[in-house]
Amino acid sequence: MLPRPIFVVAGVGNGSGTGAATARLFSKAGYNVALIARNAESLSKLADEIKSTGGDAGAFPIPSYTPASVQSAFASIKSRWPASPLRVALFNAGHFVRKPFLEISAEEVQDSVDTNIVAAFAFAKEVLLAFKELEIDEEGGKGKRGTLLFTGATASLRGNTTTSAFATAKFGVRALAQSLAKEFGPQNIHVAHTIIDGGIITDRSRSYLSEEAQNNPNVRLSPESVAAAYMYLSNQDRSAWTWELDLRPAHEKW
Amino acid sequence: MLPRPIFVVAGVGNGSGTGAATARLFSKAGYNVALIARNAESLSKLADEIKSTGGDAGAFPIPSYTPASVQSAFASIKSRWPASPLRVALFNAGHFVRKPFLEISAEEVQDSVDTNIVAAFAFAKEVLLAFKELEIDEEGGKGKRGTLLFTGATASLRGNTTTSAFATAKFGVRALAQSLAKEFGPQNIHVAHTIIDGGIITDRSRSYLSEEAQNNPNVRLSPESVAAAYMYLSNQDRSAWTWELDLRPAHEKW
Amino acid sequence: MLPRPIFVVAGVGNGSGTGAATARLFSKAGYNVALIARNAESLSKLADEIKSTGGDAGAFPIPSYTPASVQSAFASIKSRWPASPLRVALFNAGHFVRKPFLEISAEEVQDSVDTNIVAAFAFAKEVLLAFKELEIDEEGGKGKRGTLLFTGATASLRGNTTTSAFATAKFGVRALAQSLAKEFGPQNIHVAHTIIDGGIITDRSRSYLSEEAQNNPNVRLSPESVAAAYMYLSNQDRSAWTWELDLRPAHEKW
Amino acid sequence: MLPRPIFVVAGVGNGSGTGAATARLFSKAGYNVALIARNAESLSKLADEIKSTGGDAGAFPIPSYTPASVQSAFASIKSRWPASPLRVALFNAGHFVRKPFLEISAEEVQDSVDTNIVAAFAFAKEVLLAFKELEIDEEGGKGKRGTLLFTGATASLRGNTTTSAFATAKFGVRALAQSLAKEFGPQNIHVAHTIIDGGIITDRSRSYLSEEAQNNPNVRLSPESVAAAYMYLSNQDRSAWTWELDLRPAHEKW
Repeated sequence: MLPRPIFVVAGVGNGSGTGAATARLFSKAGYNVALIARNAESLSKLADEIKSTGGDAGAFPIPSYTPASVQSAFASIKSRWPASPLRVALFNAGHFVRKPFLEISAEEVQDSVDTNIVAAFAFAKEVLLAFKELEIDEEGGKGKRGTLLFTGATASLRGNTTTSAFATAKFGVRALAQSLAKEFGPQNIHVAHTIIDGGIITDRSRSYLSEEAQNNPNVRLSPESVAAAYMYLSNQDRSAWTWELDLRPAHEKW
Repeated sequence: MLPRPIFVVAGVGNGSGTGAATARLFSKAGYNVALIARNAESLSKLADEIKSTGGDAGAFPIPSYTPASVQSAFASIKSRWPASPLRVALFNAGHFVRKPFLEISAEEVQDSVDTNIVAAFAFAKEVLLAFKELEIDEEGGKGKRGTLLFTGATASLRGNTTTSAFATAKFGVRALAQSLAKEFGPQNIHVAHTIIDGGIITDRSRSYLSEEAQNNPNVRLSPESVAAAYMYLSNQDRSAWTWELDLRPAHEKW
Repeated sequence: MLPRPIFVVAGVGNGSGTGAATARLFSKAGYNVALIARNAESLSKLADEIKSTGGDAGAFPIPSYTPASVQSAFASIKSRWPASPLRVALFNAGHFVRKPFLEISAEEVQDSVDTNIVAAFAFAKEVLLAFKELEIDEEGGKGKRGTLLFTGATASLRGNTTTSAFATAKFGVRALAQSLAKEFGPQNIHVAHTIIDGGIITDRSRSYLSEEAQNNPNVRLSPESVAAAYMYLSNQDRSAWTWELDLRPAHEKW
Repeated sequence: MLPRPIFVVAGVGNGSGTGAATARLFSKAGYNVALIARNAESLSKLADEIKSTGGDAGAFPIPSYTPASVQSAFASIKSRWPASPLRVALFNAGHFVRKPFLEISAEEVQDSVDTNIVAAFAFAKEVLLAFKELEIDEEGGKGKRGTLLFTGATASLRGNTTTSAFATAKFGVRALAQSLAKEFGPQNIHVAHTIIDGGIITDRSRSYLSEEAQNNPNVRLSPESVAAAYMYLSNQDRSAWTWELDLRPAHEKW
């Protein structure tokens, strides 16, 4: 019997958003799930939850998204499941700043580029090094070594009056995702980027979303639907890969 | 028992490309398939093939893509399956001109805008009028009245030295698709557009594609994979709709 | 003494907008000005005004923007100033439809693509044929045969709920402009496209603009400023040509 | 007599590129020129050259583009010309990495984001704080407090196989420029971004450019032409501001 493949995600928040929903979905689909984030407690809780439903999950907390920490997390993942191939990776971490430009401190700018961009480079490097060691997965005609996914946002496409720091970082990650898609496609490694254009319903956002937004499925993104998009992308066969797709609620104004 | 839903496609070529592959896939998924194109013979052959595999299909040939012809085809579709709701529609027709600008005649310009753009407006109108009469389909949590799909191309995003007429038409259709997505999303009608970025393998393209391109699944699009993308889009639930995605082979240079 | 160069513009409205302001500016800069539009009376008035200020101008009214009419106007321009080289051309004509999609008739769709797109092709063809006969203009190091300009709009970049027909046409013209820029740049013919993103103050718009918009130079475009942009583009030397620039008032929200 | 305005530029290389050419042009137009860069020797040479032609220029070398160094340079500029208003600023600094992704070290990623992005934030902050203290300049109907310019590149719009680090940084700066344009336009501060799409002829590039590229004005950008674009942007009046324009040689393939 073949070892189960690994799905790794960086950025799972408090366990109620996109990262966690995607982890749950890949667990159900037979992946071992490696969870990377800064909040060790949330990570453990999510790993326990996934294990309680019959999956296998590991929490790999890191103090911050420095290249060294990211590298070390991937070493731990490899130790945990030495025979399992890493097949799908999602960079879902982010550092969100929404402020008028002149109120953003130099430290906040640095944090934003470090956590969003420098971390994305480090994460991508570990993932691509792992993918390159694998044979092409021919199961179901897929024809890929692995799939590297990035969560983007409206701010990946447009800067705005209070998003100078956030849009800068998200534009940057989008450029990284595009460059990698072009460089690694010929090695049968699939890189994709999503534009999340709308509010995602999470435990956190629930606190400030209007009641309508909470209860009306037409106006907010569900994490499970985003997860379904990531599963679809992971399963695309080599003849027709998507680099980028947008996801927004039916009634979103855009 | 509920009547089977209808899938309608305009533009099925000789039955070996995207339109036909999508028709076959929706037939397998339980849709009655309505085929619109100018080549009556190809249409009949494809309809017969689909019926021979247990599906229900109708050929609705039109002499040209004028608004009147398109309207008449939809009237015939309605007569054919009066109790069936139209749920998914794909505008896959196209008129391809690749020539230096000064060699393109005024007639070719007119044909290109008429067959690509004016026809797309007529097709969209019939589809949207039909969707608006339907209840929201709650099956599987989908939450949509219907899905209207457009096949785009690299030329939808970039004009080039020999594509002035084609890119003009494809940019235009993309604008239509975006406008409709914004206008009809709030009515739970999902409009999506694909960017087909690469060569599709068909009976026609087989004649001029290199042997490598024919046999190497890394370098050309298979119509079945594009069809799978359309099926995915049709099944997206209301909380996370994609307006646009690109599709290209793993080894495509872009 | 060298013959004066010709500037030709299609689309001058009632003489108070972009086309007319650009005609006045090029006249002041020493160009003979050829005016093409459907309203013969406005054309004559503008030609007379320009002549009264010491310039030379001709009115070339056409019944509609069909390829035959456009071709015929260019033949008349050539007859009028047989020794003068056509050096700058501006396609500023347009047909504006703003309506919910289902209220747009098939005729309006056809008019929109014909007047915006088919006419732009015909205009560009006459201009490019004329440019190709000219020597490269080395005056001031310019190094170009001629400059072909297109007036775009916000709708050239984004479709919206009531702009399906207009955005389709404007996206299309943008694709044409990009294709031509790529095809004819190597022949030292400069093609450029502007994105007019905001309200232009004209005699017409004055009637529905708020008093603030009429009197506050921060919130509306002046035709003279757009004309200045066209003059700048026409004078760019061969080492650094702009294909596209946006123009919007300082206080515009975008 | 009014004090002369200040033009400040960060990034002047060895004095033969865009930054230096723009400094020379603004000096000729009556600006005091403040030069910021890391190479003190080149800076002095350029300042001396400008002074020798009758202008006033100051060299403000910084050890690196940290926020503290940038802030300190602006304090020195203010001390140097206390009565002069800063009216135009150009961020032309850059850190160029062109390598396959897996060969880029974590340090190179950090350098790239720090020198390109973090520095751009620091530069913009000093410029905007200075602009906000000024009255609107009504000279020639301009109606602006000041103009903040950013030099972009092809990599600002597209990532590619060897440009992951560079494109990430340039996409990021473009987002910053767009956000600032939207946030500060309503305060009559003009922010613009150029896309330099082609090779610029400098002392450095001369060493690896083909003889044809060096001598054929159709195939390479001249720094003086880019400078002319910056001058044009600085002089645009409030009714029609450009956020972004591309600049490329006539024969460039794109």
